[in-house]
Amino acid sequence: MAQHTVKFDTVPEPTSAPTGTLVTEAAAQAGVEINQPCGGQGRCGRCAVVVTEGEIRRRSTLRLSSEDIAKGYALACQSVIEGDAEITVPPQEKIERRLTTDRTAAEVAVPEGYSPLQSQTIRRLHLDLTPPSMDDQTDDWSRLQIAARKQAGVTDLKTSLEMLRKIGGMVREGDWQVTAVLNAKTWDCPDCPADLLDIHPGHIPEDTPLWGAAIDIGTTTVSLWLTDLLTGQVRAQVAEYNQQIARGEDVISRIIFASKNGGDEKMRGLVLGTINELLKRACKRVKAEPNQIIKVSISGNSTMMHLLLGIPASSIRLTPFVTAVNHIPSMSAKDVGLDIHPRGVVDCLPGVASYVGADISAGVLASGMDYSQDVILFMDVGTNGEIVLGSSDWLVTCACSAGPAFEGAGVLHGMRATKGAIEEVWINGETYDPSFRVIGGVKPRGLCGSGLISLLAEMFLTGVVDKGGSINTKIDSPRIRDGDHGSEYVIAWGHETKHGEDIVITNVDVDNLLRAKAAIYAGFAVLAESVGVPLETIDQVLIGGSFGKYINVEKAVEIGLLPDMSWDRFQFLGNTSVRGAYLALIDHNLRRRITEIAARMTYIELSADNTFYDAFMSALFLPHTDMTLFPNVAATMEKQ
Amino acid sequence: MAQHTVKFDTVPEPTSAPTGTLVTEAAAQAGVEINQPCGGQGRCGRCAVVVTEGEIRRRSTLRLSSEDIAKGYALACQSVIEGDAEITVPPQEKIERRLTTDRTAAEVAVPEGYSPLQSQTIRRLHLDLTPPSMDDQTDDWSRLQIAARKQAGVTDLKTSLEMLRKIGGMVREGDWQVTAVLNAKTWDCPDCPADLLDIHPGHIPEDTPLWGAAIDIGTTTVSLWLTDLLTGQVRAQVAEYNQQIARGEDVISRIIFASKNGGDEKMRGLVLGTINELLKRACKRVKAEPNQIIKVSISGNSTMMHLLLGIPASSIRLTPFVTAVNHIPSMSAKDVGLDIHPRGVVDCLPGVASYVGADISAGVLASGMDYSQDVILFMDVGTNGEIVLGSSDWLVTCACSAGPAFEGAGVLHGMRATKGAIEEVWINGETYDPSFRVIGGVKPRGLCGSGLISLLAEMFLTGVVDKGGSINTKIDSPRIRDGDHGSEYVIAWGHETKHGEDIVITNVDVDNLLRAKAAIYAGFAVLAESVGVPLETIDQVLIGGSFGKYINVEKAVEIGLLPDMSWDRFQFLGNTSVRGAYLALIDHNLRRRITEIAARMTYIELSADNTFYDAFMSALFLPHTDMTLFPNVAATMEKQ
Repeated sequence: MAQHTVKFDTVPEPTSAPTGTLVTEAAAQAGVEINQPCGGQGRCGRCAVVVTEGEIRRRSTLRLSSEDIAKGYALACQSVIEGDAEITVPPQEKIERRLTTDRTAAEVAVPEGYSPLQSQTIRRLHLDLTPPSMDDQTDDWSRLQIAARKQAGVTDLKTSLEMLRKIGGMVREGDWQVTAVLNAKTWDCPDCPADLLDIHPGHIPEDTPLWGAAIDIGTTTVSLWLTDLLTGQVRAQVAEYNQQIARGEDVISRIIFASKNGGDEKMRGLVLGTINELLKRACKRVKAEPNQIIKVSISGNSTMMHLLLGIPASSIRLTPFVTAVNHIPSMSAKDVGLDIHPRGVVDCLPGVASYVGADISAGVLASGMDYSQDVILFMDVGTNGEIVLGSSDWLVTCACSAGPAFEGAGVLHGMRATKGAIEEVWINGETYDPSFRVIGGVKPRGLCGSGLISLLAEMFLTGVVDKGGSINTKIDSPRIRDGDHGSEYVIAWGHETKHGEDIVITNVDVDNLLRAKAAIYAGFAVLAESVGVPLETIDQVLIGGSFGKYINVEKAVEIGLLPDMSWDRFQFLGNTSVRGAYLALIDHNLRRRITEIAARMTYIELSADNTFYDAFMSALFLPHTDMTLFPNVAATMEKQ
Repeated sequence: MAQHTVKFDTVPEPTSAPTGTLVTEAAAQAGVEINQPCGGQGRCGRCAVVVTEGEIRRRSTLRLSSEDIAKGYALACQSVIEGDAEITVPPQEKIERRLTTDRTAAEVAVPEGYSPLQSQTIRRLHLDLTPPSMDDQTDDWSRLQIAARKQAGVTDLKTSLEMLRKIGGMVREGDWQVTAVLNAKTWDCPDCPADLLDIHPGHIPEDTPLWGAAIDIGTTTVSLWLTDLLTGQVRAQVAEYNQQIARGEDVISRIIFASKNGGDEKMRGLVLGTINELLKRACKRVKAEPNQIIKVSISGNSTMMHLLLGIPASSIRLTPFVTAVNHIPSMSAKDVGLDIHPRGVVDCLPGVASYVGADISAGVLASGMDYSQDVILFMDVGTNGEIVLGSSDWLVTCACSAGPAFEGAGVLHGMRATKGAIEEVWINGETYDPSFRVIGGVKPRGLCGSGLISLLAEMFLTGVVDKGGSINTKIDSPRIRDGDHGSEYVIAWGHETKHGEDIVITNVDVDNLLRAKAAIYAGFAVLAESVGVPLETIDQVLIGGSFGKYINVEKAVEIGLLPDMSWDRFQFLGNTSVRGAYLALIDHNLRRRITEIAARMTYIELSADNTFYDAFMSALFLPHTDMTLFPNVAATMEKQ
């Protein structure tokens, strides 16, 4: 058999290996250590290497995007030598970061050809006013309107009391030269009314940023992108837990809290506090002041939007589940209570229904699926699970009452994805001993959503739980035992944990996770059935939201949470809600598209749909009652 | 000579008198007492009687309007018997009231054919919403919009955050039947945007009033007419001193106060306090609540408007005298600080210049002069003096810096027209003893504007002052003497007065009054000259404002304050500013007309006009240097 020279960058000497040698084997032979937490089964992606020269054959590309592959990435445990090759072994942290950090951070590219004059509703103009005289006693405001008409073609300029109070001082301070900040719904028509938002004495230099912010109010996390509206560039990204968490983990408990005596004002204050703090933090980074921010676009689910604005949200949780408002008119920052420029424009993006909010309309925009020729499944599973199926021709959507299990709630040792959370688990198929990765690299305190999914998948593939989700107590391992909540599996012993207690998963936990994943998968099934599109024919699955940020897709497939299809049909989009808000912030054409998207989406109420219950029951198994729906998982199981 | 039977209603027996007998003589003969404070010279109007049957001839009709004459009124001292007659002698109080109270009170007739659907920007609609169901989860706000479109043809309904907070509760409380209050700039076009101002559960009965208020902010007095917008009826009229008086009597001193540290907020608070108190008082009268008021129209001079809104007013008093804004956009009550419905529409009427404000635009509307074929002189002399000359073809206007002399300021014993003010004076041409009438019928404390005018006229006609305004010290009367401020004339001795001091008028006071009247007359002269219309060809003089309320026109003519023309060419219109605001409140077509009026008026800045100084100097005499301009006064003087 042909021998090939394989050179690893981390050791001086190349090694020789015959055709068909696994890269991991060649590495071992060359004295190069490659991590294989999943035991070389191609599940964890930790053995990724980069082939810089030569040929290898990838047996499996799970955990790798087509972009990764184009860059030469390969899973060492799933790739074989077929010729001379030079291989770079990235530091483990780099792989982890690549796998786990928000990939979109690097993706905030300004849309190509962005031009504020074409796309932005806000304009900053230099205006030179004719000074008054005894022969021309025109009032200051008319004088400004005349300058705007003559010098910028603004024929219908409006303003507010706050500005009328300011104009006289500003025009005199600037010796009749001013910089005016205007907002218009559109600048396309010659007679479009424009609104004077702010005025400054003199001419502000053209390259001074004009600040805007895109905000996503998640039930758990609030994200904010501070943007220069003149260039479209995101200049600071910040995120923080929604302070409302202290008053309830999920939207239902928050609605209940808000509907009690004064609770609405408290809820409003908490989220405003969160946002205002983020505004300050982002501004500090770019040496700006929050009151220089002249426009914000806000995305978030319908409950978050109602609570932000102090609009009663009770009807959202009561049959027949209607919101007070889906399409919220543009408002002033002062009215909303945001600490930006008091006259700043607050644009809350439109939602579709009680449980398909602006975050999904924005997400669809960010995904581009509404312009796609392919059939796309878009999902945003955060604290709630929303799904959209469609293309440029049609869009259907539903919300799954998945419950907060994947956020760590309803699970004994569940926790949010913070420091100390186990975020990935691998179980040795022979010893049943787990290895795991903890956020922050500290002693573990519990399991977050991605940790639970990978744990459940590993338990299933190694036989620790059966198809029905029962822990196999016949396995002879100290890790499998009876606990206070029935059978349980020990992931970490007390001496390994932060709090000194064993971290376990119980049969009850597994049942809760099964119900959560079944609700989501049933959502896919009902949506697909409603439009007669078999799930397997879907061209692409786009995953947005916090769920998609850290998740191991093939493990989610293995437990039947995601439909079984080849890895490259999945794509993580990160926080699509804030990205959609950003696009709406900088481009009024895209803003208009969100309104169209919200109007186009056909909402399917699952609780009113009989097919949902059947689909849900069928999905209450690992991965599913109907294994023909999960051919790749079936193949993997055979390999074990 | 033919004898005629004359019957007075106050005595049982008729009397007999030959043709040509004065009614006062016949009355004396019949034993009927008729007051003649001016000594039977036809100047005071106190001898007015009503001829119910038969014939008399009126030699003079000064102090009587053509309406009065149609009702049979005659001045007993100026009318002669020409046949049998029956004469009613009204109680003196009734005459005084008729002469002195605001005649427009009775005139607040709803414009003929008033229809809220044709004229009103506010509409109250009953809407029946389709209740939501699991098959129709449309949000509350869209549901309301749909009902408004289907049931009232409102295709573009907008609203505010406050309303979005309310809608959900209201539609459910009313079991999906609601009453919506909408505002539109106009209802003429099918796609006019309308704004949801308020919503009530259920159907409010059609005859429930929909409250609006017309407000005039005078420098001295704030007037408010509470109006039912559905019928156009004024249901309560209230007035009160502007609390800002405590911080300055005139606009200039108030601007100075406002421009100092925090003074603007204090000024704003004071006038808001006045208005909010009036709102309460008016509402109490009709058993309504101020927060039921959904719209106000506000008139007032430019300074009052700026101070109300907290807009810096300094530029009004500094060369080149420009306002910050003349055409103020429509605002919300909450923004302005008015205690009506928070979403109530606040419509500040447009002004023309720093010293020709909305009160004048409104006054011109109320006068109807902008539609007149005749040439009309409109004047509003309150704390300031503004004049408009014109017709349907053209309008010119100016402001006279008359100073506050006619408001009682700058005069030793001057005071405002309140209880204790001498408001009319008659001087006996032989004894030089005065008689006077005091507001409230109490002991006098000083002299108000109308009192000063009548005093000056009487002093001039009886020779107490000469043409140049000097007190004639050669007259042998204890009332003419030297005082601390030069020569003076005693109107009331200390034992007759409230404070026990003599009430006098000094040479300095007379000079101040002369300057004030000269400024106003010079205004007439400059306006007339600017358009080439001789003053004597003016068809009508319309007098609005507080000045015109109590004034004795022929006395004002005698001192050369008003042009000398026949009595029936003068007409008192009362508070034209509040009346104009009322018309704008109930009819958007009239509101539009005020904007047109403000735009049409050509403003002449007197301080930049060379002809003004000459005209002013010529008018610094009693009545004027050029006596040919005052033929009737010349004739009266000859009679003395």
